[in-house]
Amino acid sequence: MNNIVVLPTKNRRPRGRVSLVGAGPGDPELLTLKALRFLQTAQVVLHDQLISPSVLNLIPSSTRRIEVGKRCGRRSWEQSRINQLLIALARRGLRVCRLKGGDPFLFGRGGEELAALQGAGIDVDVVPGITAAMGAATAFHMPLTHRDHSKGVTFITGSRQSDGQLDLPFEVLAKNRTTLVVYMGRRLAKDIATQLIAHGMAASTPMAFVVRATWPDQRLYQGTVGTVDQWLPQTDDAALLVIGEIAALAQPTESLACELTASAVEMATSG
Amino acid sequence: MNNIVVLPTKNRRPRGRVSLVGAGPGDPELLTLKALRFLQTAQVVLHDQLISPSVLNLIPSSTRRIEVGKRCGRRSWEQSRINQLLIALARRGLRVCRLKGGDPFLFGRGGEELAALQGAGIDVDVVPGITAAMGAATAFHMPLTHRDHSKGVTFITGSRQSDGQLDLPFEVLAKNRTTLVVYMGRRLAKDIATQLIAHGMAASTPMAFVVRATWPDQRLYQGTVGTVDQWLPQTDDAALLVIGEIAALAQPTESLACELTASAVEMATSG
Repeated sequence: MNNIVVLPTKNRRPRGRVSLVGAGPGDPELLTLKALRFLQTAQVVLHDQLISPSVLNLIPSSTRRIEVGKRCGRRSWEQSRINQLLIALARRGLRVCRLKGGDPFLFGRGGEELAALQGAGIDVDVVPGITAAMGAATAFHMPLTHRDHSKGVTFITGSRQSDGQLDLPFEVLAKNRTTLVVYMGRRLAKDIATQLIAHGMAASTPMAFVVRATWPDQRLYQGTVGTVDQWLPQTDDAALLVIGEIAALAQPTESLACELTASAVEMATSG
Repeated sequence: MNNIVVLPTKNRRPRGRVSLVGAGPGDPELLTLKALRFLQTAQVVLHDQLISPSVLNLIPSSTRRIEVGKRCGRRSWEQSRINQLLIALARRGLRVCRLKGGDPFLFGRGGEELAALQGAGIDVDVVPGITAAMGAATAFHMPLTHRDHSKGVTFITGSRQSDGQLDLPFEVLAKNRTTLVVYMGRRLAKDIATQLIAHGMAASTPMAFVVRATWPDQRLYQGTVGTVDQWLPQTDDAALLVIGEIAALAQPTESLACELTASAVEMATSG
């Protein structure tokens, strides 16, 4: 028999693990069952600033919670610092939940966090979330695709290059014949509308602006691409632009948002 | 005082209501908490054939269940017949859940069902679901958007017109610089690849083919648009094509699919 050194269990550090988890659009009842499980069995949760308080209330009070501030347009934590913290926590043997608004792989930089973690040899699980566009569509009864109106949907994000230009393929988007959804689009709405019209989109194309969809105070504004100056409200809230025929189908509806009680959630995860 | 006839309560029929509910991609743990609530409090559930058995197992045994057969390429129930049945059940005062694969407003004809129900004066709730593309992306660690690779994503569905032609804007899709996801694309994969290359897409563009993502037997195939003949498997299973740089990032991973026990689910909904 070879001389094998076996470390006593108490000296072995458990293997840490990170889950990238989609928090959905805001209504806590739109978490998936899997997201809730990872959220409630984590030892540390790192979350963005934009996660709704009703979702954060589902984190057990004994769990360490770190807000890594990322907001539309502002960024108090560099992405590299978030990556490093995730790696460091996992190396300490912790179960870490990185809770991200919407879906972690749609405009969430989840891909960058995944690559950094895998590069450091950390095991990662990824749990999808209801993305804001799907939340908005169902909240306001606005199908993103429809046999009569739209054969598909494109999701883009509004962001300027360092020279202030919008780096979007407008000539393509204007002719796409599908629904166009712009995430984080409020500040760029006027420029995007102007560019789409300049590249051939009809000024009469319906457009909707959706604020805090699935939250109790969700709001819907509707108009056309050509008249965006007249109807688009000022807001710093999380908002989506929806452009295409189906935007005219949207209806103001009562929010289905649901506060979850602590006891309901304890039951949900104790089975 | 006017002569008002008040019907006794027992003679009043309760007001029926229909929920259009997204069942997600297959793993029952990817249902939202809200979807599970509607599913378990319905009196009748109408569901597609493609819903995973693990999700159907969450329907209480006392609930009436009607399979309205809709499969890729085949259709045993006309859409109008489904609409009529939903309306008739709601008019009988029942709480009806229309359970749809993925998300009800993305290629699910949810918009048509909603319009028919509203036209008949029926109250409708719509609950989003994790769409197959998000399920596939997270299951195989393949971010749909990525700062270095893709600024957005387009979802389309593969369907032929009555003359056999593909009615897709290939000249636009080939130059979109975003990720392209084709739902129900297996039979059209070769034609779509050929058309994209003919319209200017590089033949070396990475492509992934994802079968039964989030199911216990999920499968991933990868190649390029130009070599699709060589690596695309034959299958009738629910499958997605993913085209773009990020398709090369996908990794075979172990499924996170989770069977939910009846007792866990009873606890989840009893709070």
